[in-house]
Amino acid sequence: MLARAGHDVTLIGRAPHVQAIADRGLSLHMAGRVETVRVAASTDLAAIGSAGLVLFCVKSTDTEPVARQIAPLLAADALVLSLQNGVDNAATIARHVKQTVVPAVVYVATAMPEPGVVTHHGRGDLVIGPLDAAAARNPTLGERLQAVVDLFAAAQVPVRISPDVMGELWSKLMVNCAYNAISGLAQLPYGAMAALPAIVEVQRAVVSEVVAVAQADGQHLPLDAALEAMDRIARAMPAQLSSTAQDMARGKPSEIDHLNGFVARRGAELGIATPVNQTLHALVKLVEAGRGGGA
Amino acid sequence: MLARAGHDVTLIGRAPHVQAIADRGLSLHMAGRVETVRVAASTDLAAIGSAGLVLFCVKSTDTEPVARQIAPLLAADALVLSLQNGVDNAATIARHVKQTVVPAVVYVATAMPEPGVVTHHGRGDLVIGPLDAAAARNPTLGERLQAVVDLFAAAQVPVRISPDVMGELWSKLMVNCAYNAISGLAQLPYGAMAALPAIVEVQRAVVSEVVAVAQADGQHLPLDAALEAMDRIARAMPAQLSSTAQDMARGKPSEIDHLNGFVARRGAELGIATPVNQTLHALVKLVEAGRGGGA
Repeated sequence: MLARAGHDVTLIGRAPHVQAIADRGLSLHMAGRVETVRVAASTDLAAIGSAGLVLFCVKSTDTEPVARQIAPLLAADALVLSLQNGVDNAATIARHVKQTVVPAVVYVATAMPEPGVVTHHGRGDLVIGPLDAAAARNPTLGERLQAVVDLFAAAQVPVRISPDVMGELWSKLMVNCAYNAISGLAQLPYGAMAALPAIVEVQRAVVSEVVAVAQADGQHLPLDAALEAMDRIARAMPAQLSSTAQDMARGKPSEIDHLNGFVARRGAELGIATPVNQTLHALVKLVEAGRGGGA
Repeated sequence: MLARAGHDVTLIGRAPHVQAIADRGLSLHMAGRVETVRVAASTDLAAIGSAGLVLFCVKSTDTEPVARQIAPLLAADALVLSLQNGVDNAATIARHVKQTVVPAVVYVATAMPEPGVVTHHGRGDLVIGPLDAAAARNPTLGERLQAVVDLFAAAQVPVRISPDVMGELWSKLMVNCAYNAISGLAQLPYGAMAALPAIVEVQRAVVSEVVAVAQADGQHLPLDAALEAMDRIARAMPAQLSSTAQDMARGKPSEIDHLNGFVARRGAELGIATPVNQTLHALVKLVEAGRGGGA
């Protein structure tokens, strides 16, 4: 969207995508139309060059190694925006790079059905905000966030600044913890899950555990609102299979270590019991181990 | 084994088995040999006739309806031996029949690969004993149990009388709760489960919950011994897929309601939290519902 709006954008990715984009441009299926966007693409992290804004979009399993690799390459004044699921990615990046790192919650439904092709199914808006209290006190951060809002607005991507972006990331994590593993283990969509009261009970237990861990972590995530948000998803997307289900079906490693696995680890650190998240995490890991997938 | 030793035995079962046994006898594959045993067989519960000993061998899901149906047919002095997994079958039968009901723990590995064919893979011994304290006080029970031991001994089936047969059934239930659902959900054998420490942690949580419920139920089931028994199974049978895994793979309803499902229900009655058993039960039910199986 930024390249389409005339900005100088370089995509860094794996060879099949880079080759397809170099050959034919990026094919964008959106709102019933197909557009071709000409954009630079490279497999080389050094292509990060003098970028002023870095959109950090790798899966959570790759956050640490990629952060480590880009640290010596980043321009001194670069802003790194983490467009990832999970609540620990921005902090992980910030441990390795000295530049400002800003977490973003991404609300979008897209797919990449083949190299160089992006299909857009719905939404496409971001929430950004300070990573922590220290970042919130930085006097220049507000200005830099507003510059991101303006940049994206001109490219038709709505961005909202929130003082509680971490709370929104926890809320998204909570929903993913309640749906992804179960949908994956049964290979069934959200509507089938909601139809079985025993499963809804398990999901409520997952949400209660995530909320307890979030609260112990200093987040404001009220249980009632979390349970309502969880219920809404199945009504809104009854036919949806989780990304974890799709990864498991394809024999690809899932992000489960950064969903229920993260909640179990963080709970253990904070002294909060998370038996249901632990169980779901272990079961997905077992399926991945049995299929030769997983880390 | 009883028919083979010359006793008057009638098998009651479903039509394909009954027809095969009527046509060709029961084919018994055992210790590297194949024997044909001539034995009566019927699909009609009325064939229970004047039987003095009734071996009650249905799946736990069928216990209640079958007990109800045989109640008016049983001879006044019949002894009903429950050769079933689960800790509530004998009590369920006893609620419907006025004759003496004796629980048995069955240790045997067999399969019925086709109608009229039984293959024996290992063991084949029973533990029997009083259902409860009231039964234990019955002055004639000891004599009747000893008669069962003698009858089976002459047919080369070792039977041991235990004052704590219910504790042994709980122990077997505990092992089944720790292995069956997980093996079923991942479609993997016990050795693959034992290789993943996160899964062993889940199994230990299952065992702890079962032990807590058993103890609240008045059973003597020490946690350390239970955990050791659980660990031993994976070492003894690394290639074993659980019966639940086999049922799930065939799209047949499993006994999960009488394994983790029973522990969850009994725990709720006794005020014991069983989040991991509840989760495993719900996940197996979801898979069964999704495949059109299950009750």
